[in-house]
Amino acid sequence: MPFSPALNRLAEAYRRLPGIGPKTALRLTYYTLSLPEGEVEEFARALLEARRRVRQCVSCRNLAEEETCPICRDPRRDTSLLCVVQEPRDIPVIEKSGEFRGRYFVLHGSLSPVEGRGPAELKIPKLLQLLEKGGVQEMIIATNPNVEGDATAYYLAQAARPLGVKVTRIGFGLPVGGDLEYADELTLKRALEARREMI
Amino acid sequence: MPFSPALNRLAEAYRRLPGIGPKTALRLTYYTLSLPEGEVEEFARALLEARRRVRQCVSCRNLAEEETCPICRDPRRDTSLLCVVQEPRDIPVIEKSGEFRGRYFVLHGSLSPVEGRGPAELKIPKLLQLLEKGGVQEMIIATNPNVEGDATAYYLAQAARPLGVKVTRIGFGLPVGGDLEYADELTLKRALEARREMI
Repeated sequence: MPFSPALNRLAEAYRRLPGIGPKTALRLTYYTLSLPEGEVEEFARALLEARRRVRQCVSCRNLAEEETCPICRDPRRDTSLLCVVQEPRDIPVIEKSGEFRGRYFVLHGSLSPVEGRGPAELKIPKLLQLLEKGGVQEMIIATNPNVEGDATAYYLAQAARPLGVKVTRIGFGLPVGGDLEYADELTLKRALEARREMI
Repeated sequence: MPFSPALNRLAEAYRRLPGIGPKTALRLTYYTLSLPEGEVEEFARALLEARRRVRQCVSCRNLAEEETCPICRDPRRDTSLLCVVQEPRDIPVIEKSGEFRGRYFVLHGSLSPVEGRGPAELKIPKLLQLLEKGGVQEMIIATNPNVEGDATAYYLAQAARPLGVKVTRIGFGLPVGGDLEYADELTLKRALEARREMI
């Protein structure tokens, strides 16, 4: 290939990002070369600063730049409600709904016997410590609606019940705005199970 | 949003890349945070080095890290054949076919009256200088098969003819492995025009 080594190295770096194939990596590389040098420097700085500054909130394991995250520092949040999610990226999704005013806990993964991820590989021991301290009345489990997310939810429910915490899981069913016609079987099965009496 | 500023800045930096929407930018940001710091440093370095080291080959305007590109330095390339392309990224595509052993010239764009790109905005004056020096017997125009690429090809053909250079354009037709059924009208029109007698 008639590429320069520096160009190849950048294409390879882009290629390592998830969802970026070789063609997109090349397109991004050529785009980078066309940018003003200052803009590329800004990008490089953003990469390094995000990686160096962002750490985990000591209390909920959300991403934070300080010891605790802005949600844990917010005195208006209801500390009796705890929403458990798999990843930090799930928090903004729930926040956007505007429905939840409690706090969060981030597991950083889901239980997976296949991939060898047990409770200790996640932040589950930390979560149980938090529940043991008391104060949490309801734990809403918002793990993903798939096999691993289900297994994680059941494990957490079992572990939390002896601690006197009410354990719930967010509802499953048809996505709002979706078409019944396009719903898959499992979603429909779950939607039927989750049916509620009207009025 | 409960994001940290450093996290937001990186998401915005990713967002500025072509074809990266807000969701992908966030996904890439979280991925970056999960990488070992050394890998993020390598990515940042690759960005800066590519942008700083890569420049244009003085002879063909391909991307290069030295004064001339590896293709122009290669004594085995046929200097009587010149393939004109719009962008540096077109060169590896043609190289991969293994069919072309001449040299290249990169226009860095196509003529576009609509977007105000005339010959001087491209490297066309440089190309004509090169042709005037003599040595090129055939100029193969490989601009894109669209309105702007066509206009550029016709302009170049007109400009090169008085210099005694044979001007050709790469063939158009059905893509190999494609299905006639899925070919668009224009491709079929061009394929019919490009028909050749069999044996």
